[in-house]
Amino acid sequence: MAIGRSVPMLDSVARVKGEVDYLVNLRLLNMLVGKIVRSQSPHAKLLKVDTTSALQVPGVVAILTGADLGASAFYGAAIKDQGVVAVDRVRYVGEPIAAIAAESLDAAEEAALLIDVEYEEMSSVFDAREAIQSGAPTLHEKYPNNVFIHSRLRHGDVEAAFAEADEIFEDTFTSPLAQQSSLEPHVTAARWDGEQLTVWAATQAPYMVRRVLSEIFGIEQNKIRVIVPSLGGAYGGKGHIRIEPLAAAMARKTNGRPVKFVLSRAEEFVTVTKHAASITLKTGVKRDGTFTARQVTIYWNGGAYADASPLLIPQGMVRSVGPYRIPAVHVDSIGVYTNLPPAGAYRGAMSSQTTWAYESQMDIIARRMGWDPLEFRLGNLFVSGDQFATGETLHDVHFVECLEEAAKAMNASSPLAPIPKMGQGKRGRGYGVMMKSTVSTSKSQARMKLDDDGTLTLFTSTVEMGQGAHTAMAQIAAEALGTAFEMVRVVGPDTEITPFDSTTSASRSTNMMGNAVLAASAAVKKKLIELAAPLLETPAEELRAENGKVLANEAFIPYAEILKRNGLNSLEESGEYSTASKLDPETGQGISTPHWHQGAGAVEVEVDTETGKITILRYTASSFAGRIVNPRMAQLQNDGNVIFGLGPTLMEEMMLDGGQVTNPNLADYPIPSIRDIPVELVSVCIESEEGELHGIGEMTLPPVAPAVANAIEDAVGVRIKDLPITAEKILQALKEKSQP
Amino acid sequence: MAIGRSVPMLDSVARVKGEVDYLVNLRLLNMLVGKIVRSQSPHAKLLKVDTTSALQVPGVVAILTGADLGASAFYGAAIKDQGVVAVDRVRYVGEPIAAIAAESLDAAEEAALLIDVEYEEMSSVFDAREAIQSGAPTLHEKYPNNVFIHSRLRHGDVEAAFAEADEIFEDTFTSPLAQQSSLEPHVTAARWDGEQLTVWAATQAPYMVRRVLSEIFGIEQNKIRVIVPSLGGAYGGKGHIRIEPLAAAMARKTNGRPVKFVLSRAEEFVTVTKHAASITLKTGVKRDGTFTARQVTIYWNGGAYADASPLLIPQGMVRSVGPYRIPAVHVDSIGVYTNLPPAGAYRGAMSSQTTWAYESQMDIIARRMGWDPLEFRLGNLFVSGDQFATGETLHDVHFVECLEEAAKAMNASSPLAPIPKMGQGKRGRGYGVMMKSTVSTSKSQARMKLDDDGTLTLFTSTVEMGQGAHTAMAQIAAEALGTAFEMVRVVGPDTEITPFDSTTSASRSTNMMGNAVLAASAAVKKKLIELAAPLLETPAEELRAENGKVLANEAFIPYAEILKRNGLNSLEESGEYSTASKLDPETGQGISTPHWHQGAGAVEVEVDTETGKITILRYTASSFAGRIVNPRMAQLQNDGNVIFGLGPTLMEEMMLDGGQVTNPNLADYPIPSIRDIPVELVSVCIESEEGELHGIGEMTLPPVAPAVANAIEDAVGVRIKDLPITAEKILQALKEKSQP
Repeated sequence: MAIGRSVPMLDSVARVKGEVDYLVNLRLLNMLVGKIVRSQSPHAKLLKVDTTSALQVPGVVAILTGADLGASAFYGAAIKDQGVVAVDRVRYVGEPIAAIAAESLDAAEEAALLIDVEYEEMSSVFDAREAIQSGAPTLHEKYPNNVFIHSRLRHGDVEAAFAEADEIFEDTFTSPLAQQSSLEPHVTAARWDGEQLTVWAATQAPYMVRRVLSEIFGIEQNKIRVIVPSLGGAYGGKGHIRIEPLAAAMARKTNGRPVKFVLSRAEEFVTVTKHAASITLKTGVKRDGTFTARQVTIYWNGGAYADASPLLIPQGMVRSVGPYRIPAVHVDSIGVYTNLPPAGAYRGAMSSQTTWAYESQMDIIARRMGWDPLEFRLGNLFVSGDQFATGETLHDVHFVECLEEAAKAMNASSPLAPIPKMGQGKRGRGYGVMMKSTVSTSKSQARMKLDDDGTLTLFTSTVEMGQGAHTAMAQIAAEALGTAFEMVRVVGPDTEITPFDSTTSASRSTNMMGNAVLAASAAVKKKLIELAAPLLETPAEELRAENGKVLANEAFIPYAEILKRNGLNSLEESGEYSTASKLDPETGQGISTPHWHQGAGAVEVEVDTETGKITILRYTASSFAGRIVNPRMAQLQNDGNVIFGLGPTLMEEMMLDGGQVTNPNLADYPIPSIRDIPVELVSVCIESEEGELHGIGEMTLPPVAPAVANAIEDAVGVRIKDLPITAEKILQALKEKSQP
Repeated sequence: MAIGRSVPMLDSVARVKGEVDYLVNLRLLNMLVGKIVRSQSPHAKLLKVDTTSALQVPGVVAILTGADLGASAFYGAAIKDQGVVAVDRVRYVGEPIAAIAAESLDAAEEAALLIDVEYEEMSSVFDAREAIQSGAPTLHEKYPNNVFIHSRLRHGDVEAAFAEADEIFEDTFTSPLAQQSSLEPHVTAARWDGEQLTVWAATQAPYMVRRVLSEIFGIEQNKIRVIVPSLGGAYGGKGHIRIEPLAAAMARKTNGRPVKFVLSRAEEFVTVTKHAASITLKTGVKRDGTFTARQVTIYWNGGAYADASPLLIPQGMVRSVGPYRIPAVHVDSIGVYTNLPPAGAYRGAMSSQTTWAYESQMDIIARRMGWDPLEFRLGNLFVSGDQFATGETLHDVHFVECLEEAAKAMNASSPLAPIPKMGQGKRGRGYGVMMKSTVSTSKSQARMKLDDDGTLTLFTSTVEMGQGAHTAMAQIAAEALGTAFEMVRVVGPDTEITPFDSTTSASRSTNMMGNAVLAASAAVKKKLIELAAPLLETPAEELRAENGKVLANEAFIPYAEILKRNGLNSLEESGEYSTASKLDPETGQGISTPHWHQGAGAVEVEVDTETGKITILRYTASSFAGRIVNPRMAQLQNDGNVIFGLGPTLMEEMMLDGGQVTNPNLADYPIPSIRDIPVELVSVCIESEEGELHGIGEMTLPPVAPAVANAIEDAVGVRIKDLPITAEKILQALKEKSQP
């Protein structure tokens, strides 16, 4: 049994010894250093980009500007509005205007200073709600009011349902621009061998990168190879196209020499962000504790280019409803251009913002109505068989269990000893639950190669980014094939080597790629049985493959032996798994996801009423995991989500001045450190009998912010609606409360 | 239709421009130069290998000697007698004793001179027939009489059959030690990344290399990656294990730095050779022109190590019988150790030696019996339905057609104009026919990836070595899938990327890998039809896939569109093909091959009776090709075989002095040049209706030597039985004839 065992990560020793081959360490023969020259204006026409002096700097090999690019050099998941580098206009501070390939970083940086850029400034707008006002500057002429997507969900008669409500609540919750903050920055190396392009990319989606590069450069996909080594984190920030086109375009100018770009932390801040969001929830409740209606209006700040937002914002729509029975639901999920860096996926994508809203409002309602927040939730949570706002019937949902497990761990706890120096401390408890769709139409393929020494190689385009996906896949393969975990090697992603996978994101891999691995295993076993049948002189139907052997009633042959006796050095088989789902574009009705991610959290906080300082005393996270592949890694995912989630909850916010990020470093933009980990942190993974394999990379993150906000209100009676919940905001709110 | 078209080779432009990535040009980051230190003694105990001084040379990074190696560091296809480097004994001049890895070739060469080797000489033997005499020195204690293999074929009662003969002929024919002489030498680079080994090898058998390295180093096969770029020729010389183990062992001592070995031409001569052979044929004929019996005794000079000889010598047994109906046949095919470099496969392996014997004797018999050599052959050649000496029934054999086509082209020719300065010229005509088994038990797998832009990538471990195999595979794939040839890219071999194939040798690839490609194509089409069925709203059984589309009666969808509409970026399918055959080890009875290679030649020569100079006036080569994939490339193969075959016929012979090769360079060991090409060279490829795809890399080679010898006897009445047929031998024979 390989599934259910807490085997160590496949490369854990290499990780500890610092020997993982991260892309920042990649060295290629004759490799040049790439450097990006970026816009200093938030919105301007480019009058001149003069590289004459820069090209004179010794060591500079080539410089790429918009003049090198054809009309096809624009990309974007649905709207091709983003140039490989800016051509005649820039729309945010930090937008690439040129790139330099040089023998050294010093030479590149010297040249960067010598590129002469002349701007004609245009007026700018940074806030989504301002950008949709008439008179606001337009970023893209095709979208005069800056709205590039508007997703609608229409379920039931909301107006009639509000009329039936005893109380109607309307609140607006905001999340600021934030960073995915993977420790490894964006890195890409590219090399052209004639018309053949090889790209080494720190990406979550190698096949997406390949396809987009093919479109941009007008070459066949089978001439492009995208290789992805182990990533040092990604969290959605590497989920779509980033600097890969720029690196490939730069490398096309260097006469076959490879070029590598490694972004600085400051560049990270202008490369991709978490969508700033403003979410207004209008919710009708009845005195019996049930809902009548909910209307959601979300403005997502997409930044200057649509990027992946047209894929994410419809998901944000579905993810904004919440895990409660509400008969009538309308959602408007609106994407808006502003003069900020493009926004993209962020761990618990879109749910991080929407759960903040709906779980905060749950407590506002409960407190105003005089109900216990926990009981109010438990009474309304979806159970299997309920209908969701998309019209789909829910299966295998365990929200009640998740919340009860989280609450039980919290309520069963004995009181914590007082924390030294926290004399002013007031304590409170809060809860949060989340419901998240995964990516809907997607596909995974896996290939297996069994060698005649019994070793198994699994070829997968699932990206290992520290989450342990390759370890999980090796466990699934070992279990399915009945072979030792230690015999399995995992290879990929490399689009030349490993078969198609849509993306490593949305916690889809354990389920989708896991099922592809199961299918490949089944194919290998079938083949082994066919090959063994004549050797065992038994019909294939009477044979079974287990524990590395094909068995008849009395006799058996090890897999390796079956190959050898058939003169096979190796055999290869593939498997695949796909899901398709579709919502009506007018009403958002249909099937939105093959599976719902489910998580909950319970938290006890202490608030220092003198300083506003918030201490997380204990946090209990729970998630529904179907069937757990690796208990220890699953628990670490749950824990990691909580710690990660404390960042946007308590401290993370990109500060801007005229479109310029003013805290683009991890000193001024703090992320949770070891000292921010809750005094007590408990994780519960809920399994179900005959549960499927599921990813759990995000489920315990979105509940963190509202659970903490709810606990703070429980402790000191103030309600914060704008993330992050800083000490300053608490103090200000306490002051306002005491001086009504 | 992609099959049957003379498309240019896939990389023809790169070839013309000198841009093919031959391994000699490979540069890796931090790569070291490898240099082999070789034995200067043909047979000695190694008393000392002292590297102390050599290690002091600046730039020397590491030195490998026998002391580094474990007991497992011996290899060989059947007998593991060959060390990665010599441990305590050397058995031929040129045997590796040590290897040096250095920053430069100069440093390595300086260090090589400083390695202090002390020998205790032992007596040596170089000739196979001497080596089996009692009292000859023994090379390997396990084989005291130096015979390491003795293959026997026993078909019918030979003694009784000889008794029925009217005449019995007994002749011995010899072939000397010769070189495969690919222009690219043996090259291997190796790099260890921890326990992971990557080898870039100029080999015909990447999976064989992987398996042997796994055994030598005791690591799992899935931790070894063997990459094979395009080869600059191989001709069997790269068909088994050569310097790959040594390169890998050397690289293990360099702390992760890759090492590349490029052999010099002189080293090529001591790395692998064509088996020197002495073949005695005893043949009984009746006055009616039929055979009664044949007894064949072959001594193959295997050199100091068995290498691949235990696989080749049983094949030599089958290939020594010839394409004629002979009721009783006995063969003894005997492999003998001598103090010479190991022998291996050589284009037209073993047939080159055996055809020389049996086709020379055909003319001896015909002339002595007063029969026309052509008619004598035609009257006895096998036809389909005949039984071969192994007991198997022959199918799809076209020897008569091959010979008739060759003869027709010759006899229909008008006389050539006299050649200037050849006043003493006498002209004659000769014929040769050959029958060759291919490798018997073997397997090919192919994988295809269809991308959603309609491009197809074919993954194959078939080695491109200038023969055009990748082009042929692309044509087969394009035809089978009904897609444009230009859309197909071929990748491989790379054991990490491309699936298993036994070897690229014995002209097996077009047939075996071709069939695997057909199987993969069928799987892709099946999958496309399944995916298209719901789109076309037609049951899969009523759909067909042709010309890049799936078609229903009224409607169709292009392949690319089927993928896109199913949300698939690509799809992958595999196919395989295998053959198994087996001969009884005591009697050689059974099935020896899935297919017989068939070729013939007719030649007109002019012999200068004053100088002995032989001029090939015209040569007509014919081969049976089943169904021809690429007519132009097929013709070039036929032509190339003839030109190649003129080398061992007229000029090639390794000269030795005390086991030391005295002509190890292409000045003193001439191979055919452009000036040696026949004045007229014609090729005929014979196809059959519904013929299978067949390789034709060797068929017109083995007949060259006997056809020329036969034409010489026709011209000047002398018979040469020892290759090569030099002017000196002709003059000597003419002199002996005129002074009886």
